[in-house]
Amino acid sequence: MFEAIKLGRKVDKETFNTEQEELRTQLLLVQRELLQTNMPVIILIAGVEGAGKGGVVNRLHEWLDARGLQSFAYWDETDEERQRPRYWRFWRSMPPRGEMAILFGGWYLAPLEHRIHNLCSDAELDGELNRIVEFERMLIQDGALIIKFWFHLSEREQQDRLKELERDDRSRWKMLPQKGKEREHYAHFEYVAERMIRHTDRGISPWYLIEAGDVRYRDLTMGKTLLHAIKQRLSEPPPMEPPATSGQLELPGSPESRITVLDHLDLEQKLACDIYRTELAKLQSELNGLCWEAYKKRRSLVIVFEGADAGGKGGAIRRFTTAIDARLYRAIPIAAPTDEEKAHHYLWRFWRHIPRNGYITIFDRSWYGRVLVERIEGFATDAEWRRAYDEINQFEEQLVESGVVLVKFWLQVSDEEQLRRFKEREAVPYKKYKITAEDWRNREKAPQYRTAINDMVVYTSTESASWTLVEGDDKPFARIKILTTLRDALRTALEDGNFSSNSGYVACGKRFTEEENPVKLKSGKEKKSKK
Amino acid sequence: MFEAIKLGRKVDKETFNTEQEELRTQLLLVQRELLQTNMPVIILIAGVEGAGKGGVVNRLHEWLDARGLQSFAYWDETDEERQRPRYWRFWRSMPPRGEMAILFGGWYLAPLEHRIHNLCSDAELDGELNRIVEFERMLIQDGALIIKFWFHLSEREQQDRLKELERDDRSRWKMLPQKGKEREHYAHFEYVAERMIRHTDRGISPWYLIEAGDVRYRDLTMGKTLLHAIKQRLSEPPPMEPPATSGQLELPGSPESRITVLDHLDLEQKLACDIYRTELAKLQSELNGLCWEAYKKRRSLVIVFEGADAGGKGGAIRRFTTAIDARLYRAIPIAAPTDEEKAHHYLWRFWRHIPRNGYITIFDRSWYGRVLVERIEGFATDAEWRRAYDEINQFEEQLVESGVVLVKFWLQVSDEEQLRRFKEREAVPYKKYKITAEDWRNREKAPQYRTAINDMVVYTSTESASWTLVEGDDKPFARIKILTTLRDALRTALEDGNFSSNSGYVACGKRFTEEENPVKLKSGKEKKSKK
Repeated sequence: MFEAIKLGRKVDKETFNTEQEELRTQLLLVQRELLQTNMPVIILIAGVEGAGKGGVVNRLHEWLDARGLQSFAYWDETDEERQRPRYWRFWRSMPPRGEMAILFGGWYLAPLEHRIHNLCSDAELDGELNRIVEFERMLIQDGALIIKFWFHLSEREQQDRLKELERDDRSRWKMLPQKGKEREHYAHFEYVAERMIRHTDRGISPWYLIEAGDVRYRDLTMGKTLLHAIKQRLSEPPPMEPPATSGQLELPGSPESRITVLDHLDLEQKLACDIYRTELAKLQSELNGLCWEAYKKRRSLVIVFEGADAGGKGGAIRRFTTAIDARLYRAIPIAAPTDEEKAHHYLWRFWRHIPRNGYITIFDRSWYGRVLVERIEGFATDAEWRRAYDEINQFEEQLVESGVVLVKFWLQVSDEEQLRRFKEREAVPYKKYKITAEDWRNREKAPQYRTAINDMVVYTSTESASWTLVEGDDKPFARIKILTTLRDALRTALEDGNFSSNSGYVACGKRFTEEENPVKLKSGKEKKSKK
Repeated sequence: MFEAIKLGRKVDKETFNTEQEELRTQLLLVQRELLQTNMPVIILIAGVEGAGKGGVVNRLHEWLDARGLQSFAYWDETDEERQRPRYWRFWRSMPPRGEMAILFGGWYLAPLEHRIHNLCSDAELDGELNRIVEFERMLIQDGALIIKFWFHLSEREQQDRLKELERDDRSRWKMLPQKGKEREHYAHFEYVAERMIRHTDRGISPWYLIEAGDVRYRDLTMGKTLLHAIKQRLSEPPPMEPPATSGQLELPGSPESRITVLDHLDLEQKLACDIYRTELAKLQSELNGLCWEAYKKRRSLVIVFEGADAGGKGGAIRRFTTAIDARLYRAIPIAAPTDEEKAHHYLWRFWRHIPRNGYITIFDRSWYGRVLVERIEGFATDAEWRRAYDEINQFEEQLVESGVVLVKFWLQVSDEEQLRRFKEREAVPYKKYKITAEDWRNREKAPQYRTAINDMVVYTSTESASWTLVEGDDKPFARIKILTTLRDALRTALEDGNFSSNSGYVACGKRFTEEENPVKLKSGKEKKSKK
């Protein structure tokens, strides 16, 4: 594959200057145009060592307007990044719509380095690359343009370049805290890179391979490619793929379609008041201890509360939080998104709140809004909510894989009980605000909601993240069921030896320790603190 | 002072239950009302060990609606917090307008602990408390309500309580990673606390001292106080103080007022093209090395670019960034604030971008917009922009004190040169967008701008953060002046032995090492990593 980009292409100075002038004008114009659109542009910069990736990024900063352009590198991780699922850092660097982000290596950096250092097998690498393909597809279907550059040098050119850099006292490369040893294994590196590129070179997000032997050729080609890719996307919509989940369970109109998982719930179940009190106190005390233990073992807990209006979410959440030290948890009520949130993929606003290892986030409503209210109210298009099942499953899989204990509740109440509660709320001064005209309107949409809930439970009850359906007519019963579920989930998780010290990170389907991290920064400072 | 809250006040269970019911209703109503206002509410929770601060916070979470309420503790700092000026973490926890935040200890925690452990003197403590008074005043004048609670126990009560907690296997207190030794020095602790409270107990942000011997009395009193404080503020505006800087330099109409610092600039200065090229290459190479050195020494650099329209900010910034590795800097163009930004004090959006130690942030326009465009266009009220000088000076002082190298440029061009550039821009396709009707309107306001710029330079040229006025008519001259200034500032800073290892933090006017941090978390994990 790389033979085609070892042709020794060159551009002379004069040509470069002339073409640069025109290219820059065009790039600035297209960047202006971009600002008026809903399209975020993600530029990934990768390649062999010595190909001048830093130089390419600097060139882009020189050519483009700083407004609406940020670059991100992942060589100097912080606690906050290390202590969260690995993709958190990438979500953090997502450009808002209309803007551009340049990512050094991005999500390709870790799998590439792991495979090169033989920390994972080809099969494990492929698994990770599949995830990447899905991730990129998700962003693209949300409107993003992803442009992936691979800069290459022949073995000979690389050796010359690196020698040159070593001689130069002011070379940036020399200043980098950790230099890889890729040049010693050129053939192996090329083999891995080729595998990676082939696997992730999709029609909707192709790799652009660029010969990096001549700086002028390299930059000019990169700039023209970028310009072309943006212009092309601006003139035609991104290629849409049908969602993997077709939603065929729905058979509207047929009587079977009206039987949902909710019909299997026995809403008559009750718990006597005195048993409730005793159980509640016991569970709360157990949960307090378990949450501290989870803190010590650096396991985090993410709880999703979804449910019917007046289903009792608030009361159940309070029974849990009362038991837990306020320093450990954060409750995130999901209301209308802010404009910063609207400028990103809909999962972005939830990624923001994913806790650090050892902490707890309680989502009072969640990403499932996409397949419930957004589906029913038409806030999401048909294609959007249909593909959301898959996106959500992948999101949750990442959480669980990284050690997050994920528990999801749906609180169901019968129509009659809901009506009773609505009326009760209207009568109590401090509960009155909880009932709005919208709640009454939602009641009329109960049939549509039942279908949507059923689909949600069916499509997103995965092995790693199953739903707990809670019979909510009797509040004591519901609360005890919820707290028991949480206790059991925490207990099981804390007994799991695989996560006994959750200090590492997950990539290529494996758990690595921090020491094994080849992309980790070894700065002077860190070395010192280890003495 | 504390005698008045050692009276053994108690509330019986029945009274508590009755009063709690009513109180809760009222609190929820007032919280609803708050959501409609522009007022953020900050609740600070402090007090002696064993007084049950965690319990108080849990009670608040039980009584209030989770929507619009977050709590923050500062016992488990991250890199990202440690590697920035100390107040960054507090800015991070600021509630948006209409919402509430509960801060455990907040900005009082560090000075209190430092003084108790004799790491600073009374005078140094007082210095820090002065800063706190100013900080709180600033937030209050921006519309915030700050409610500070101090929970107290007598020595006897404290000893009983702590013994009780030690016996209880499930006590939260016992689980806390590091317990202070305050109880061994009750008298000393009380002395320091009293000094702190007296010093910071201001009419606009008073301390509420609450006896904590009886949990029901404690919580009920806290709840009622909170309710009263919010209600009172909702019914009357916060007490405004005249700004410390009266802006008396302005004598509108008088001929002297038209002579500004800008008139002293010799805009005729020029640099020959060949000298420019040589100098530019030399400076860029030096800056590249210095920025890497600053990275290694963990010194960060914040550069402010302000200037006339078409003053050459963009070109100057690009000459700097071209020299620097893109991994080290971020350029932040300041345009209209997002709605999340608008929901906070105007400095919040700049604090967001303050870099970690070792990194560089370039602000293309900055917080000075408050005293320039916002003043002239009337976006800020008279009181707002007048007090901004002080707020800005304190903000910058904090940056510099924590080791940030701060450099501020004003780029000035003559009227004629500006006109020439406007016309030139209109003629070049990719520069056309840079000229809008607003730029032409701004030209007409040149006299007002001259006054505002003069005031800005006079009031905010502090010892630690002076302005560099740049004669901008000749671009080569301006760019070389800017790069030289940056080089010299970095060089001087890096030679300064006081900051040679910028790993500590600043409090009470002193620099502490991380090892001296008494509020630092000593968790199992950290201990392990030191082996």
